[in-house]
Amino acid sequence: MTEFTLLRINLSSGKSKDEKVDEKTLRKFLGGRGLGTYLALKEIPRNADALGPENKLFIMSGPVTGTAEGFEAGRTHVVAKSPLTGLIGESNMGGRFAPWMRFSGYDGLIIEGKSEEPVWISIVNSEITIHSAKDIWGRGTHYTEHYIRKKLGVTPKEGAVLAIGPAGENKVRLANIIHAGGRAAGRTGLGAVMGSKNLKAIYVYGERKPEIVDKERFEKGVKLLKEKIGNHPVRKALNNYGTAVLVNIINEIGALPTKNWTKGTFEKAEEISGEKMAEKYLVKSRGCWGCQIECGRLVKTYSPEWGVPEGSKGPEYETIFAIGSNLELSNLEAIIRLNHVLNDVGMDTIEFGNTVAVLMELYERAQKGELPQDKAEELFKLLDGLRPIWGTPNPVLELIYKVATRDGIGEYMAEGAKRLAERFGCNCVAEARGMSLPAYDPRAIKSMALAYATANRGGCHLRAYAVSFEVLGIPKKTDPLEVNVEKAKMVKEQQDFFAAIDSMIVCKFNTFMTPSPEDYVDLLAGVTGWDVTAEEIMKIGERIYNVERLFNVREGDPGDYLSRRLIEEKLPDGPAAGHTAKDALEVMLPAYYEYRKWENGIPSKEILRELDLQEFEYIIA
Amino acid sequence: MTEFTLLRINLSSGKSKDEKVDEKTLRKFLGGRGLGTYLALKEIPRNADALGPENKLFIMSGPVTGTAEGFEAGRTHVVAKSPLTGLIGESNMGGRFAPWMRFSGYDGLIIEGKSEEPVWISIVNSEITIHSAKDIWGRGTHYTEHYIRKKLGVTPKEGAVLAIGPAGENKVRLANIIHAGGRAAGRTGLGAVMGSKNLKAIYVYGERKPEIVDKERFEKGVKLLKEKIGNHPVRKALNNYGTAVLVNIINEIGALPTKNWTKGTFEKAEEISGEKMAEKYLVKSRGCWGCQIECGRLVKTYSPEWGVPEGSKGPEYETIFAIGSNLELSNLEAIIRLNHVLNDVGMDTIEFGNTVAVLMELYERAQKGELPQDKAEELFKLLDGLRPIWGTPNPVLELIYKVATRDGIGEYMAEGAKRLAERFGCNCVAEARGMSLPAYDPRAIKSMALAYATANRGGCHLRAYAVSFEVLGIPKKTDPLEVNVEKAKMVKEQQDFFAAIDSMIVCKFNTFMTPSPEDYVDLLAGVTGWDVTAEEIMKIGERIYNVERLFNVREGDPGDYLSRRLIEEKLPDGPAAGHTAKDALEVMLPAYYEYRKWENGIPSKEILRELDLQEFEYIIA
Repeated sequence: MTEFTLLRINLSSGKSKDEKVDEKTLRKFLGGRGLGTYLALKEIPRNADALGPENKLFIMSGPVTGTAEGFEAGRTHVVAKSPLTGLIGESNMGGRFAPWMRFSGYDGLIIEGKSEEPVWISIVNSEITIHSAKDIWGRGTHYTEHYIRKKLGVTPKEGAVLAIGPAGENKVRLANIIHAGGRAAGRTGLGAVMGSKNLKAIYVYGERKPEIVDKERFEKGVKLLKEKIGNHPVRKALNNYGTAVLVNIINEIGALPTKNWTKGTFEKAEEISGEKMAEKYLVKSRGCWGCQIECGRLVKTYSPEWGVPEGSKGPEYETIFAIGSNLELSNLEAIIRLNHVLNDVGMDTIEFGNTVAVLMELYERAQKGELPQDKAEELFKLLDGLRPIWGTPNPVLELIYKVATRDGIGEYMAEGAKRLAERFGCNCVAEARGMSLPAYDPRAIKSMALAYATANRGGCHLRAYAVSFEVLGIPKKTDPLEVNVEKAKMVKEQQDFFAAIDSMIVCKFNTFMTPSPEDYVDLLAGVTGWDVTAEEIMKIGERIYNVERLFNVREGDPGDYLSRRLIEEKLPDGPAAGHTAKDALEVMLPAYYEYRKWENGIPSKEILRELDLQEFEYIIA
Repeated sequence: MTEFTLLRINLSSGKSKDEKVDEKTLRKFLGGRGLGTYLALKEIPRNADALGPENKLFIMSGPVTGTAEGFEAGRTHVVAKSPLTGLIGESNMGGRFAPWMRFSGYDGLIIEGKSEEPVWISIVNSEITIHSAKDIWGRGTHYTEHYIRKKLGVTPKEGAVLAIGPAGENKVRLANIIHAGGRAAGRTGLGAVMGSKNLKAIYVYGERKPEIVDKERFEKGVKLLKEKIGNHPVRKALNNYGTAVLVNIINEIGALPTKNWTKGTFEKAEEISGEKMAEKYLVKSRGCWGCQIECGRLVKTYSPEWGVPEGSKGPEYETIFAIGSNLELSNLEAIIRLNHVLNDVGMDTIEFGNTVAVLMELYERAQKGELPQDKAEELFKLLDGLRPIWGTPNPVLELIYKVATRDGIGEYMAEGAKRLAERFGCNCVAEARGMSLPAYDPRAIKSMALAYATANRGGCHLRAYAVSFEVLGIPKKTDPLEVNVEKAKMVKEQQDFFAAIDSMIVCKFNTFMTPSPEDYVDLLAGVTGWDVTAEEIMKIGERIYNVERLFNVREGDPGDYLSRRLIEEKLPDGPAAGHTAKDALEVMLPAYYEYRKWENGIPSKEILRELDLQEFEYIIA
């Protein structure tokens, strides 16, 4: 691979052009998350309005995307300035979009400007057409894909669609981008960026084959992954139960966030577990393009109330926490339908669930007279009769529509959990950098405190997944309640490794089974022809992590913190009862900064030079 | 009263001007429905697109509107070309809009053209302001009213708002115009006309007092109504139980449409009755401006699933039929919430309920393999997992949002019940002139067959309410299963009388207790100073009825019919088992035409001359 071909589409002018990314830049950032973030920092002006035409959307493949089946190279990375946090916004999506994008002739798309009228774009073998989206504006993502395929006369197997729903159109800050019915570039509000550009959807199709420079070495790399992963017990667990296999595991160690993070165990966890889903609702498992793990759930339901199309995408573990345990909701059929509708309107299930959890706590407090009277009255007025009571699915269903259309209380909820809590003068929110936390209580898994606090995109479990060593014992088991500086190093290294993984792009689940950078050397070297080493992969990852941090610093980073609920309020239940996340940050954050060569969260001149990032020194000057 | 002052607002130019209606025209058409229809016929061009800028919206008061409290003069009449039927569209709305409109300085509004951007209008003591509706476009009517009052700094008691919800914005053909949380210009899709003009809402306020020419005589007229109505048992029934008092009554005679008009009795009628509502959910009764009947229900609910704000508008009898018995749904709390949400998104509950009933029948047929396979597959695809099963409220809730945003199956449902049934090749619809029938099965109340078939705006119970003599014995009891020409005369006379009532404007419920035109002579003569008689009132009504029919004839009236379900399918149950509505039309329609001096449904030259409508002879030429 000598270069990348990107398609730059300016929606203000309607014009597009091809651009090349040279090999030197690729070797520094690979593709995917790395290249997207690098371009975002270079191209998006400082203090840009995340919902203005000056924001840009980078939709990226990596060098191994779509090259061969049998390993996990189907994912897509999307980058922009985040409307939720005002910092770096980026999200990695499963499915088959990036492979089809490469087949269409492009390794990445840059969407800039803003169309005057709603449009959608088709890219078929490098032929770009901008269509009016008048007939699908306001519609859900499921109907949108149905419409586009009908319009183009293509079957569900030909090409790939990504689309926003009404949430993105209405610039809801928790809006995501949906692909294939339920695969999502879920976090940081990227759907709102598409919406702000009046861009409803993108279809890609083509017959180009991605370049593989050294086929022999590449095949060696693929073979390694196939073999190591193929019969691994983690693969089997993911294949049998999906990510929801974690419900019981995480509940057992008291880290399953419940009732808006006021508890770490949910007495009805079993009812919403991956095992229960497999037993009662699973039709079959399904993977992304070329994937052998197949963690995706295709499910069905039975009740008249909570129908989904047979074989639609089942909820992930994070969703089951967000609209399940965190709302004390144990009706798995309801969760399956709610997840389906959230995918349809295009909203991040994690941020949405957390926002509803905050609302439920506010509602409970208002009922008990614990909110100031004017706030309580406004809350009731905006709820317009809805009763968001713990464990009740119907109000959640209506809230999906209300948030997606910013109606009534939805106007405030559309700003995310943190702003909702602030609006009503309540500290009842679990967040970092303005983004709500996912499904692992950092008071019960101490390294996750550091992972959340230092995640550049805000509270995220996928920038470092400390759960792997703290809970799953990969690569070695640690005590989740212990706090030490060694863990800080592991978090830092995982962050760097994952940044490279997200840039190649390979599925992160691989790293459970092939947890060494060494495992990816042949693969990457084979595709690119580069004489790459494990050390270089880690260094690329570290470079990417620093570029993200530079983006944040330039935009006024609020720093590495966790919100009060996790620092000051003790977990009342389970094995971690009595714990907070305070000690974790106190001990690990200084050590982490030392490993990173950061000063108080800001990259030093030294590390920027080490990573060949001198061009961004102006940011820290 | 010598003249009316109308405000004409052209939304294309943003300009407005005052216009006078002279006394001669007023004496021919009174105001309200009469004047609105007359102006509609004169001003809306033939074959106008009902959703195009050439359609116009006439929002009218009558000469007695807002003159004095203690009788029923608070209603508003709205007229336009109907997006649902393509014929005359008009609807009479309770509440307090028209009184406040008159207080603001205007007896009526004419809205024409189309704004480029969404706007709302405020009219405060003749001062007209056009505001951007950018911040409320997409929002429900409840939030919209809240927003407008906050914006203007006025309390809920100052002035009146009418608004559309997302349904109107999306030009849903069953969209209505909502006022005061739940009062509706409900039928014929008038909300879509507002939406097509990018007009979100109108606020009116002022201190002008309507003119009363002969105060003494007027007070005599008011006193008559007050006294005759004040202690009348019908007033008490309406006050105690609202219109829902009819559920048990109509069910008992086997005329309560159930399961999409396949039955005339609902075994669970008691559970959704006005008595049950009064017993369990009623907070208090509430009337329109100045009203002494107070048939409106302010209700509360208890379940977490189906909350409404305490004291919100409870469902009318028609709504209880449409989303209750006709869907075999007996959960009254669910009906209360669904009604509340329908008011919020701004949709006609009657047309919506009938459309869902058709969908439920289609779904059942598809499940049983009774639909062609391609139709069934498309239906399932568009339902996106929803299971519209008889008696299940959750899918109905989601369908409200889907229809309001035209998502998936909502795209077809948004066209109304008739078009939905046609789209899937099914005759399972109860309609006349393209509008779904309300809550009285004409196979069990034969005169209603004629009333529906000849209602100019399509299947309607309020153009002639034959139920009053067939069931309630007002002014005298008839046998509802008997068919005779005398009934045709009664229907015709009621139509004329009601047209005058809707034009004065007085509430139609008065006519249960003051059923003679004579009862309104002093009232009308007092306000206007005219030497008016009961005969003249009836003649005005007949004139109005003919003008409406002329509008229809000009637009290609499909004629006076009832759909196949009512003509060919026998009622299987209840006192009217074995009956159809065929005999009713066969016997009564020819007689009706004779009374009307119509030829095959078209007004004759003779009647036009009698009614001084020569200016419209060109239509029948």
